[in-house]
Parts: sequence; structure tokens; C-alpha cells
Amino acid sequence: MKLGVAWYPEQHPPERWPEDTRRMAEAGLELVRLGEFAWTAMEPARDQLDWTWLDRAIDTAAAAGLQVVLGTPTAVPPVWLCLEHPEILSVSPEGHRRAYGSRRFNCPTVPAYREACQRIVAAMVQRYGSHPAIVAWQLDNEPGNHDSARCWCDWCERAFQDWLRERYGTIEALNRAWGTVFWSGQYPSFEAVRLPRPTNAAHSPNLLLAHRRFSSRQALACIQEQQAIVATGAPGRMIFANLPATELAVDHHPFARLGGAAAIDVYPTGMGTPEDVAYLLDLALGYTGRAWIMEHQPGPINWTPTTDPVPPGQVRLWGWRAALHGFEAFLFFSWRPTRSGSEQYHTGLLRHDGSADRGLIEATRLAAELRLADPALLRRPPAEVALLTTHDDRWAIEISPHRAGLTHQALVVAAHAAARRLGYEVDVVAPEPAIAGRYRVLLAPALHLATPEVRATLRAALDAGALVILGARSLVKDADNCWVEEPLPAGFAGQLGSFVADWFGLQTPVTLAVAASDHGPGASGVPAGIWTDVLAEPAEGSGAEVIARYETGWMAGLPAAVRRGELAYLGATSTEAWQALLQQLIGPGPAGIAGPAEERFVRAGRSIVLNHDRLTVHGLD
Amino acid sequence: MKLGVAWYPEQHPPERWPEDTRRMAEAGLELVRLGEFAWTAMEPARDQLDWTWLDRAIDTAAAAGLQVVLGTPTAVPPVWLCLEHPEILSVSPEGHRRAYGSRRFNCPTVPAYREACQRIVAAMVQRYGSHPAIVAWQLDNEPGNHDSARCWCDWCERAFQDWLRERYGTIEALNRAWGTVFWSGQYPSFEAVRLPRPTNAAHSPNLLLAHRRFSSRQALACIQEQQAIVATGAPGRMIFANLPATELAVDHHPFARLGGAAAIDVYPTGMGTPEDVAYLLDLALGYTGRAWIMEHQPGPINWTPTTDPVPPGQVRLWGWRAALHGFEAFLFFSWRPTRSGSEQYHTGLLRHDGSADRGLIEATRLAAELRLADPALLRRPPAEVALLTTHDDRWAIEISPHRAGLTHQALVVAAHAAARRLGYEVDVVAPEPAIAGRYRVLLAPALHLATPEVRATLRAALDAGALVILGARSLVKDADNCWVEEPLPAGFAGQLGSFVADWFGLQTPVTLAVAASDHGPGASGVPAGIWTDVLAEPAEGSGAEVIARYETGWMAGLPAAVRRGELAYLGATSTEAWQALLQQLIGPGPAGIAGPAEERFVRAGRSIVLNHDRLTVHGLD
Amino acid sequence: MKLGVAWYPEQHPPERWPEDTRRMAEAGLELVRLGEFAWTAMEPARDQLDWTWLDRAIDTAAAAGLQVVLGTPTAVPPVWLCLEHPEILSVSPEGHRRAYGSRRFNCPTVPAYREACQRIVAAMVQRYGSHPAIVAWQLDNEPGNHDSARCWCDWCERAFQDWLRERYGTIEALNRAWGTVFWSGQYPSFEAVRLPRPTNAAHSPNLLLAHRRFSSRQALACIQEQQAIVATGAPGRMIFANLPATELAVDHHPFARLGGAAAIDVYPTGMGTPEDVAYLLDLALGYTGRAWIMEHQPGPINWTPTTDPVPPGQVRLWGWRAALHGFEAFLFFSWRPTRSGSEQYHTGLLRHDGSADRGLIEATRLAAELRLADPALLRRPPAEVALLTTHDDRWAIEISPHRAGLTHQALVVAAHAAARRLGYEVDVVAPEPAIAGRYRVLLAPALHLATPEVRATLRAALDAGALVILGARSLVKDADNCWVEEPLPAGFAGQLGSFVADWFGLQTPVTLAVAASDHGPGASGVPAGIWTDVLAEPAEGSGAEVIARYETGWMAGLPAAVRRGELAYLGATSTEAWQALLQQLIGPGPAGIAGPAEERFVRAGRSIVLNHDRLTVHGLD
Repeated sequence: MKLGVAWYPEQHPPERWPEDTRRMAEAGLELVRLGEFAWTAMEPARDQLDWTWLDRAIDTAAAAGLQVVLGTPTAVPPVWLCLEHPEILSVSPEGHRRAYGSRRFNCPTVPAYREACQRIVAAMVQRYGSHPAIVAWQLDNEPGNHDSARCWCDWCERAFQDWLRERYGTIEALNRAWGTVFWSGQYPSFEAVRLPRPTNAAHSPNLLLAHRRFSSRQALACIQEQQAIVATGAPGRMIFANLPATELAVDHHPFARLGGAAAIDVYPTGMGTPEDVAYLLDLALGYTGRAWIMEHQPGPINWTPTTDPVPPGQVRLWGWRAALHGFEAFLFFSWRPTRSGSEQYHTGLLRHDGSADRGLIEATRLAAELRLADPALLRRPPAEVALLTTHDDRWAIEISPHRAGLTHQALVVAAHAAARRLGYEVDVVAPEPAIAGRYRVLLAPALHLATPEVRATLRAALDAGALVILGARSLVKDADNCWVEEPLPAGFAGQLGSFVADWFGLQTPVTLAVAASDHGPGASGVPAGIWTDVLAEPAEGSGAEVIARYETGWMAGLPAAVRRGELAYLGATSTEAWQALLQQLIGPGPAGIAGPAEERFVRAGRSIVLNHDRLTVHGLD
Repeated sequence: MKLGVAWYPEQHPPERWPEDTRRMAEAGLELVRLGEFAWTAMEPARDQLDWTWLDRAIDTAAAAGLQVVLGTPTAVPPVWLCLEHPEILSVSPEGHRRAYGSRRFNCPTVPAYREACQRIVAAMVQRYGSHPAIVAWQLDNEPGNHDSARCWCDWCERAFQDWLRERYGTIEALNRAWGTVFWSGQYPSFEAVRLPRPTNAAHSPNLLLAHRRFSSRQALACIQEQQAIVATGAPGRMIFANLPATELAVDHHPFARLGGAAAIDVYPTGMGTPEDVAYLLDLALGYTGRAWIMEHQPGPINWTPTTDPVPPGQVRLWGWRAALHGFEAFLFFSWRPTRSGSEQYHTGLLRHDGSADRGLIEATRLAAELRLADPALLRRPPAEVALLTTHDDRWAIEISPHRAGLTHQALVVAAHAAARRLGYEVDVVAPEPAIAGRYRVLLAPALHLATPEVRATLRAALDAGALVILGARSLVKDADNCWVEEPLPAGFAGQLGSFVADWFGLQTPVTLAVAASDHGPGASGVPAGIWTDVLAEPAEGSGAEVIARYETGWMAGLPAAVRRGELAYLGATSTEAWQALLQQLIGPGPAGIAGPAEERFVRAGRSIVLNHDRLTVHGLD
Repeated sequence: MKLGVAWYPEQHPPERWPEDTRRMAEAGLELVRLGEFAWTAMEPARDQLDWTWLDRAIDTAAAAGLQVVLGTPTAVPPVWLCLEHPEILSVSPEGHRRAYGSRRFNCPTVPAYREACQRIVAAMVQRYGSHPAIVAWQLDNEPGNHDSARCWCDWCERAFQDWLRERYGTIEALNRAWGTVFWSGQYPSFEAVRLPRPTNAAHSPNLLLAHRRFSSRQALACIQEQQAIVATGAPGRMIFANLPATELAVDHHPFARLGGAAAIDVYPTGMGTPEDVAYLLDLALGYTGRAWIMEHQPGPINWTPTTDPVPPGQVRLWGWRAALHGFEAFLFFSWRPTRSGSEQYHTGLLRHDGSADRGLIEATRLAAELRLADPALLRRPPAEVALLTTHDDRWAIEISPHRAGLTHQALVVAAHAAARRLGYEVDVVAPEPAIAGRYRVLLAPALHLATPEVRATLRAALDAGALVILGARSLVKDADNCWVEEPLPAGFAGQLGSFVADWFGLQTPVTLAVAASDHGPGASGVPAGIWTDVLAEPAEGSGAEVIARYETGWMAGLPAAVRRGELAYLGATSTEAWQALLQQLIGPGPAGIAGPAEERFVRAGRSIVLNHDRLTVHGLD
């Protein structure tokens, strides 16, 4: 795993650059990212391009032996362009045009923005496409971040209608697919389908999911235009969109596949528990099997509510975590904190005054350790267990959480963390037919939309002998976010020999008991989580067996999990329930049992343990 | 009490309808409601009416032996109408026109909407006015719901000014009545009185109350136009507006009186404690003495934050509660959950897949029990105790709660629940002169506006020998929401021999002690609630006696309740304080003492006890 | 200290006025304030002035022996003026013009408002400038209150650009000063600098601070125009702007200096702990050394969330607190509560019905006590300790708190309260060079902006031998709110022999230990507060000593406070940490140790103790 750092030479005098790049190299960093957020520096006015500073910055970096990741600067169009084309500014749901002065304030659809992006990217490619120091291009920055994916301008409305026309063909087909007969909402034409602007009650979840898909497609289309230019003009370089790991606004999947490897931005103190982060790392790795961390915090950051400290040892641990998960590169954000603007409180590897901050000291140690490490340690072994998930499912549950505080993230992390605590590697993959025969166990904790492809994938996996474990809220809706009028889990209730009889959020916690099996004595008193499905009692002789039952509340005694053959369904949603169930069904994995603050890996025959409480790394030496 | 259900045939293929209606009848349901939310199905485009499906649906229901409640569909104007007349869409306080795509997004004032409503209702009446299966018409749906009563469009502003002109005559009279001299707000003309759009500090409570009254009148006027058409064209049928039991946006009173019986929509898991629900049921019954439940949840619902489960036994208990309170009909919402739109997570009597959900099983049992029950059990006996309340009071306290979290609902429920816990039936009635001689005890827990009619009613009741117990925040303001410049309680301080010396919210709880009386030994350590009035010590020899004193805090020793003759005033606001005071003043009632989770009824000489914790019904057999 | 009261004669019939003013005088009140909020009464329509009522009201007050404070009524322009010039209404960030009907809804910049203000003030001055009963003029009312300082209208935008042009000269200079190169935000011209309207991510802190300064200047300019008129036409009278003590929207400093004495409005139940209030009182006194309380609550108020009661003894205590802090006048708000409008629940000295409320009884006692008191008791002695603060610092931390819940107020009150608990008088003063030699100890708890003037003041104070104690977040930014690229504390790290190595908010509390000194044995287990800086270990032999270390968390053992010579830096932010440090550095003060609910004063050789829990005043007799 190569280390690197984001660098903003335009914020500092050129006289400082040789020292900065020299110190990067001395610390063991190999990659330096620059250029994004510098559109105005590159193009200070219409038809004026200034490459002098960028030439010098790239050459300075190259002279220090650094490899360059060059960013296209399209996440912030210049003020002069906004004044020339005010329609570039995106429009809020209430119809207010957003002000410039922050970032990602532009509409992703409007032609004036698209054209300006293509022009500046083409100019960059022309100048730097074959620069030997440049090993990769980053396109734009964090698509979808700051709620930028969705815009309510007239350009977007027309594009939305066109997209629907293409997708559904006739308005009657759309009305049928969305069930607009509910609340008398039948559209007379595609022109009548408006972007979901504020109204006094909720908009249809069908419209809302379509709108999210459309908006994500618009953001993608923008970047695909850049990709085409770079791929042609800068052959042989890697191409990335860097994705904000925790933002849901766009579907990361196609972005991650733009250039063969995914790239994500990772800020652990703003991402939840270590188990949340571990899931998101595996999610990114699952897109193509290869991934970079394009930004990683080196210390306290500015945008979390409590701005937690980052204790000594933390940065090194983060680096090793990424390496053990299988990332190929790890770039800190950033070299030196900005003196102006919104991110003054975001630490860097240096302090504001240019002296080394703690992050640089740990980065230097990490670089040395990685250089000395056995490469086999950093090779991720094939996994027996995979977790299936799609971005559409995240959106569908975001639109209709149905229980305050319930998120798709929590539902999938519970299953992922349970398998990890049991000692398994877990691949996070899309439910595409290709994966059917690849894994021994498939976890489907919240595989919400029962599309034909999803059904076919599960069917094929079962046919291939895999154990498939469905979780609450799996296989409930169709591709248009309508409830499927079949027994739940849709398409598989028959095979399961049971069905979902009750589903709801819980205010008062309940527990469940998991039956004994060959793998152990079972468990009781297991907390069920804030959402539970209750399953129907299977018929005698159906071959279905109840492998967990609720113990408390009015559902005491009723089925919490049922299994028939290689298909199982778990109605509870906590990590503890998943862990108890997996223990019963498949027993512990190769890495051994880990606590919630631990991560255990088997690499090159060695057991390596990260402890996120004590900030220790065991098993490397 | 008849059972019934809401049914949306337009959402399902006609081939399914005979099975659905047959199963309704088999379950013992007698009423089926349909039609509301089907405007576009009835009128798919301008000047096109399609009755074929509705003919068939009504006839199918009739063939199954069901009685039909036909709903007018005006709660959702069709999309084509909104495109033709965009001014139909209501306007938010900030001036944004609301989008179509949900429901109740229309302005209640704009002529294009009013005319379209009259046209569709007239057409329905022409076709179905004398249909023998139709026993009742529901007009519109849940007026005021989703904050739909108030609209800030130009049509509404002009109508508001006209309404004020009619009410006050001259702008000088309005300025006097509203006290606009405060903060230099004198209006030079009626045209200068604007709807209360956002400003940087609070608007005058005087304007805000007038605006609520006006808006409620507009919503009513809409429905009165429909009522005139139906009453003429469908003679002999009942006519209802179904009222959302917990929404404050319109004054339910005149709506409930449109057709002789009130109808409310009851969703207990979104309505607070069982005592909150019991109050709201009695409130609805008090409007005319007769009432239906037009919608009632049959299981978990989609719009509460935690989507609580509905355990076995709950639906049956809810049914019996309604019957014992005296409702004449009880319709579930709905037969089968929708597959599309905003309410996919709202359970029905069936599941999405068409199989029977738990609600249907309990409804079937409930129907059988009701059929076998002694009719005398369901007859509500005359009450000795009445609670006086007006919707204006709810609004006035909503506008000026003065203590975060304090609601009119909480103030009145405390008194209602206290009398119910003591074993009394409690009628909830408006303070109209007609009720003066009808009750032994009148509770006025938050009878805020001391209008001439309210004063006259109380005076007449005292003259007729009733015991009148005023609560905190009673008799404070005039009809225009100005503070009355008299000692409080306004108009009755002299008779009470005391007055309200201090009033405020409390952060630190205090307790009070109630003196002994013929009815018992008194009580101490009684919590006072989050709002307390402190009364002045009565003069020696005035005949007024202090019957409760605060025990803790700086007001320890000061009067919490005073009585003189048949007039009493309680400064504390908790249920416990009301119960202790009523115990002292009138002793226990015929049904005996109940706990907070119980309801006790005496019916046909039998004692019936509902337990809302254990979900049990005792005393029926 | 003179007592007085706000009076709104226009809200009551003139026949009542003699009784009201007689009772004021009988209670011992000497001052009566009237006129503000009466613009429409003075000028009911364009070019019509009505002075009859005001003549009579002033004369009635004078006849009762009262001295009059006359308020200009410009905080609420009349409705007729708003109709004539709708551009007077201010504009929200989203572009909505605010409605009239409340107060302070006007733009401070628009010429139509400025001209109307000058006209009405000139007319008032012409009529009353030499009235012998008038001793003071209040200009406008609570500038900045209700978020009124900032307006987003086109007039304000142009004025903002003009102000920037004047301040920076060239757009290049502004771009440099604000560091707009961050996020590619370089402005091509001053016309391109827009008011900070909503965007999807944060605006630059540099723009936001400039916008606050500009807006404050606009509000000040309005009032300066009035001041010029009054100073000329009403010679010899005091002139005040009454400042809402807890609102941050304008910089109070120049307002307080308009007329030689500051005036603030004090509502303790809405201002935090007694220590918060004590700080704000000293802050007001520090502006010029002289101050009035122009409004003070006499009982419960209407705008705090919980509307706390005001127990017996509280009003008297408040009066004595103000007197002992050194205020020259203390006016209650108000004489009688309004019957209409937004403040009906705000108590007065009378009740709504005109009878004496508790406030009047206590005010009468207070007046008598003050009349009898030794004048020397009310003379504030010179302080040894001063706390340095600026309004710019409050704004800068408000814009970038960096830790949810952290406020400038909390940071400065911690230091102020600590010194007060130790028994010291504390002057709160601006860091102007003039104060350099005046104090033995200077506290700089959050002196955020390291401007040249601030640096010079600190340098001069150190040169003069004062002990200077810097707190966390001092000396971090430059005058334009950019981070200073020097070791922190900027400009003084060298002299300190240490620097700020880590800074962040804390979720998990930590403690620190303060070393022993000549003043005592030190302390351990001292809570550090929700923000901490960790200091670098000083070099051996540098002369710097670590005088406090953290005890828990990952920073256990690291320096929490360092001292070198007369310069010290405290990284912790709690009152307890400041108190322990001050105890170590300077030992207890003359008044002796006080608890958090106490205030101790030494006046005329006597020790006086106010207890804010027990509401007692000890040491007066």
C-alpha cells in the first residue's frame, strides 16, 4: 500500500514548495494529489489559462520523486463563470438558487456547466496528459457531497421527464409502475411529472426513488464526459472519482467502476463505530475488487459535532486497517491546514505554522513499517462469506425508514459485523448473477428490492449450494419501490416454508433465543434490535425448522428465525442476533472470535489483531 | 355498534372485488367506505366521467350485503386540474406554491377548486343519490389534516380581509379589539391586514387567532357547499365530514354538526396515552351526542415515529372501548394495504398479498361479540360530570403556550382523566347556555377565553346549583385573545373570594396537599404539574376556604386551590392534583377507582373494566 | 442608583395616567421611560403628527415628580409607512421580504427608513428637546434584537460592496486577506461579493465575519444619525442605545459609547447562571465605566422556554446586585403588562388588572433601602484583575465554534467567574493599549483574533509588569478571520517557551492537576471542560515551567498550563481549572472565596454577600 497526501500549492508561495515536497518524500510518501479546487487559479478569467504555477508545482513534486494524482477542478466553478452563467447555480427544492462561495453549488445538468467542465478538462489533458510524473487522474471531487446531486432547476426537470420517457415509454406504463392511482395521483403526461418540490404531505416513495436514480445518473454523466476526455488524452493513467464514503446522494457503484479501481474518502471520526468503517471499507473494495483511499484524516477534523481528538497511535492503526483490508493506496488529507475558508480547523500532516504535526510523525512510521512488511501480509484472501447489497436498497429505506432512526447502514453493518466478529472475511458485493457460485454463505440483511435480477441471483446461489440468509426488510418491494403483492420474503416464502407475519419497529427491547446446533449450545437473552419481523410458524412436516424464537414481549415464543434447507430468514436485526444465528449455522471462522472494538485478520498464515480501543496492532512482528 | 372498513377497489383488479366483499361480509362487517381519493378515476380528464368501475364496485359491495358509505373525492384534485388551474395549489407562509403529488395540497378558497368540487359532487349525487345500498356520504377527507387548512395565497388574503370587514365593521374597531397599539401596529385599513407571513419576531396572538378562525371557516365553507348538494340530491342519507381526532387545524365542532352525527378518525398509537384517547372519544361524542369512528387502525401504522406493534387482543379492546364510549359505527382503515404511494407501511385487515392479517381475525371475533351483546351494554348513561371546552381555547394556548411543552390537550386531559379515574362518566361539551342545568359538576380546566357566552354559561350553571371547578388558565382572555383587565379568573374572582396572584411554568416539580373533607382524609405529596397558578389567601370571614396548599418550593404554604360555595379554582394542572381535589369535593363515582391504564364503565348494571396494559376486557360475560 | 420603570401610556386611557404616575412616585421610582414603540401614535399618517397625548403623558409624569427618559420610536415603523415604502421591510437570507406586524422588521440601510427616522426624531426633538422633565433620550430599541441587524436586500448588498471597497481598496487585496484561493473562490470584482445567501455547504468564515461587522455598522449608522439630531436639539441630556445584554448580532461597544454611559436590558431568567449575568453586567460597565440598566424584569417573562417563576426576594436581590456592580440606574420593564400583542405573559410591577404585583412591593422596599444606604456602599472600587475581550472574538467563535455547544460566552465566563469566586473584582475591558498599565493581572480566556492592536496591548502590559494569562483559543486568527501561520499563541509562543501542540473538543471529560505554589498546595481532579489545548513540553532550561498537567485520557501527563515569567497559558476551559490556576498564580482576593451561587463584594470596608440560591443579601446592615 502506497502512502500519499493532498497538497494545495496554490495556497502557499512557490518558494515553500521544494521544502514541502522534500519533506513528503522524506516521510515515505510516494503519491501527491493536487489540482482539484484550483479552477480559478488555472483559468482566472474567460479564455485565459494560467499553467505556470501548475507546471512548476507538478515539476517540483516530480523533482522530489513523488508520483502525482492530478485532480480536475470541476467541484467549484469559478465566480466569473457563475456571474456569466447564473443558471449554473443549482436550485433548492424551494426554488432558491444557491449562492456561490462554498463548493458543489452547481447544477449537474445545465449545459453551460457541462461545457465549461469539458473545456477545462480538455485543456488540462492537452497540457498534462503525457506528463511522466502523473500516474492517475481524479475527476471532480466527492460527487453528491453536500447534497449536491439533486437540483430542482428547469433543466433538471426537463431531463428528468426525458429520462422517465426513455425508461417507461408511455405515461400509462409509468402510472402502473408507480401505482399513482393511490391518492388520485395519475399523471396525464410525462410533462406533468415534476421534480418533488415541497408539498404539505409526503411525496410518493415511487417518485422519490426515481428522482434519486435520475439525479445520480446526472452526476455520473458529468463525470463520464470527463472520463472520456482523460481516457483518450492521458492513456495508461488510472482514473478515479473519489467518493465520500458515508454519503448516500449518488450510487457509488458505477462511479467506482469508471477506472477499474474505486477510490473513497475516509474520515473515521465522522463515520460511526469501527464496525461501521470496516463495512464501508469492504463495500468500496467490493465494487471492483481494487480500491484506493483517496483522502484519509490525519488528526482531528472540522465537521463533526464534537471534533474528537485523535490520540497517539490512531493514525498508524488506521493505516494498517486499510492495508489489511486490501487497499492499494492511502492518501492523507491534507499536507498543511488551510489558513482561510471553511476548513481551517481540519488538521493536516503539518501544523498551520508549517511544523510537523503528530500525523506526520505517525505517517512516517507507518511508511517505514509498510516498506518493511512482507507483501503477503497485505494480500486479502478469498472470502467464504459475502454480503449482498445495492444502493437502491439504501435509498428505498432512506425514503421509507418506517421507524425513526432505522437506517440501511445499521441493518447491513449488523450482519457484516456479526460475521467479522465470528472470524470471517466478508466480501460486500452487488447481487449480480456472476457471484452466484463464488461463496459458501450469502448474507442478505436488507436486500429490500426484490428485482428479477436479485431473485435470479439468490436462486442461482441456492442452486449452487450456497447457504442464503435473508434478514428483515429483504425482498419486500419491486424495482419501482412498490410493495410486492406476494408473501414475504417475496419469491422465497414457499421455499422457506414460512413467511413474515408481522413487521414493525420496537420501542421496548425484546430478546430472542437461538437453538442449539452442531456448532454449539445456542444462546438466549440475545437482544433483537430496534426492528423485528415475526415469522409464521412453519407447518408440521414442511421441513422448515424454527431456529430462533423471541423470548419476551407479546411475541414471546414466536419464530424469530426459520431455516429450510440452505435458505434461512432472520427477523431480528441486531449484530448480536446475527452473530448468534451465524454461530449456530456456520460456526466460527478462521480468524477466531473478536470483540466489537477488534478486527482480526489471517494474513500469510499469521493472526493479526487490531484493537480500536487500545489502538494496538498485534501480530505484525 | 356496526363494524365496517375502508376499501379502495380502484387499486385492485375488478376480478378480485367479489372475493374481497364476500370476505368482508363473512367477517361480520356491515359497512364499506369507498370513493374518496378516486377523483381521477371518476374524472380522468376535463369533461370525461367514468362511472363504470364505481357502478360495479358499489354493486359488488351491495351484492355481498354491505351498506356503502360513499366518499366525495375532493381531498385530492386530479393532476390535470392542477395543470389547468395552478392557482388551486395552496401557498406556504413563505410564498411557495405547494406541489401536487401528495394530498390536501389545494387552497380551500380558490374558485377553480370550489367549482370543480361542486361539479364532481353534483355528478356523483346525480348518479348515486338514490342508490339503495348507500347509507351515508362522507364529504372530503380529514379537513385540516397535513396543515392544509391554512393557505397564504392572494385569494385567501382578500377573503381574510373581507371576513374581518364583516366581523369588525371598521378598522378602528379591529385596532381596538386587537390592541394593535402594542408595538405600533395600528392598521390604516382592512387592506393593510395581511396574512401572517414570516417576520423576525412573533406575530400578534390576536392576528394569529383570527387567522385560525378564518381558515377554519374557509375549510368549512368548502364542505358546506358539498353538503348542500348531497342533502338535496341524496335525501335520507347520513352526511359526515371525517375528522382527524388529534389535528387542531380546524374547529371540529361545526364540521361534526353538518349531518347530525360526528365522525372521527382514530389512530391510538399516534394519539398518546389511553387517557388521551378516551378524552378525544368523549370530545367527539359531545359535539352532537352521536358519533361514528370513520377510520380506525387495525394494526401498526406508517406515520408514527416508532411504528409500535399492535399486540394480539389490542384490536378487539379498541373496538370494545369505542362501543362502551357510545360510538354507533367503527370502520377499519383499511381492507388491504396499498402497494404504492405513501402508506405502504400502513397495515390493513388483509396483508399486501391478500391473506388475512391479525386485524381481520380480531375484527371477526369483535363482530361476533357485538352481535351477541346485550344492547343495553352499549348505551351510554347520562353523566353527572361535564368538562367544558372550546376549540378557540385550544388555539389560544397553542399560539401562546407560554411554557415549552404545555398544551391545551394536556390541561383538559388531566381533568377528564381524573374524573374518569374516580369512577365518573364525563361528557365533554361546549360552554353553551343550554348545558347549564344539565350537570351536577362542571370542570373547566383550561377554559381560556372569558367570552360573554362562557361567563353566562358558568353563571347560569352556578345559579342552577352546579359545582363549578375552574382550572389554571381559565378565564384569562377575551374573544379577541386580549388579556382581560380584571382579576383572574375573570368575572369570578369576586365570587371566589380569591384571585390568581402568580402564574408560571415550573422547571422543578412541586407538590401540594389537599385538605380533608367529608369524602376522605385528604392527600399530600401530590405532584402539581408543569404549570401552576398560586392563589391569593382569601380574606378572613369571606367564606372562601383554601382546600389545597403547595407544600414545596418557594410557594410552600400558599393556596393551590380555593373554594367558596359551589365555585372552586385549582391552580395545579396534573391529573393527580385534579383527582385529589375531586375526591375531596365530590368523592368517588359509580364505576369505582381506576388506574391510569384502566377504563371502568357501568353499563346495564354491570361493571366493565378495560385494561390497556394487559389488553383485557372484564365484565362482559 | 436610581430606580425607574418603562411606561406605555398610549395603551391605557389618559384618565388612568395620574394614578399610575402617582403610584410610581410613591413606590420610590424616580425615572419613567416612554415613547419607544409609539411611532404610529405620534404620526398616525403621512404628514400628520399628534403630540397631544405625549404632551399630556410627559406632563403627567413630570407633575408626579418623575424624570423622563424619552424613547425614539424607530424600532417599529408604522404600517402606513411600510405600505408606502415596502422596501423598508427587511429581506431574509432566502430572499423573503419580512412581514410587518412584529418589531424590528425593517432594513437598517434603506433610505426611506433612514429618512423617516430622521424626520420623526427631528420632530420629537423640536417639540421636547428642552422639556425640563426629560433627563435622557433612548435611541431606537434593542438594536440587533430578533436577528434584525442583518438584511439581505439589494440596498444592503450594494452598501456591503461599498464598505468592502473602502476597507480593502482593491479586490486583489480582499482576495488575499480572505484567502479566497481556498475552494477556488476568488472574486473578480467587488460587485461579485454577495451577501452570504444560502448555499449547500458552509460559507467562508472570512466572509461571515465581514458580513457581521458590516451589518453592525449599518445598525450603528442608523442610530448615529439620530444621535446627531438629539445631541444638537436636546443639549445636556444623556443619550442611550439600550442594548439587549445577551444578543450577539451587533457589536455593543460603539453603541454603548454613543452617550457616555452604556445602557443594557437585563432579563436574568433568560441569561443563564448568576455567573453569566455577573459577567454581562461587568461587560456593560466596562464599555465606558458608567452604565444604566434600561430594562430589568420584575417577575416572570414571556420568552424563555420554561417561564420560570420569580420567587419572593428575587427582585430585591437583582436590584442590589446591579447597585453593587456599580450601575447608576435600574428601570423595570414594565409598569403594567400589555393586554394585547406578543408580550401579554410578561409581568410588570402591576398586574393586568391594575393592582400591585409582587414586583412593585419589592421595588418599593428596594427603593427605600437604596435611599437609606451609605453612598460609599455603591461605589465600585478599582480592580486588580481585568478580563480582555472583543465582540469580534464572540463572532469569530460563533462562526466557527468547532465543537457543538461551545460558545465564546462560556469561555470568558469561566475565567471571569473563577476570579470572582476567588474574591476579586474583575473589570471586563477591550484590549486597547490604554489599559496596559492599569491592572496587576490580565485574563485573556478567548482573545481569538491576534490583531496588531491586541498584540501591542499584551506586549505593553507585560512590559508594565502585569501577569498575563492566556486561555484556549486565544491568539489564533488574524483580523480577517484567517488562521495565523505562526506557532500558537500567535506572537507569544516564543516568550512562553511552549506552544499549542493539540486542540480539540472533548466528548469524554478529563481532569488536570495544578502544581503547588507559594499560594497553596495545588489541586488535582480538576475538570478540564469541553475544550482543551495541549501544550508542548518546554525545553529544559528554557525558564518555562509546566504548572498544570492533564491527569486522565490519552493526554495524561501532558502540559495543561505553562508559565514563563509573567506570561501563562491555560489549555483547559472550565471555571474550576481557571480557579485552580488563579489560586496557584495569585492566591485569593480581598472578598474571600465564594461558591458558584454567591457574589461577594467589599464595599466601604464591609463584606457583602449575595446568595442567588437562598435569595439573601448579607452585610448591608
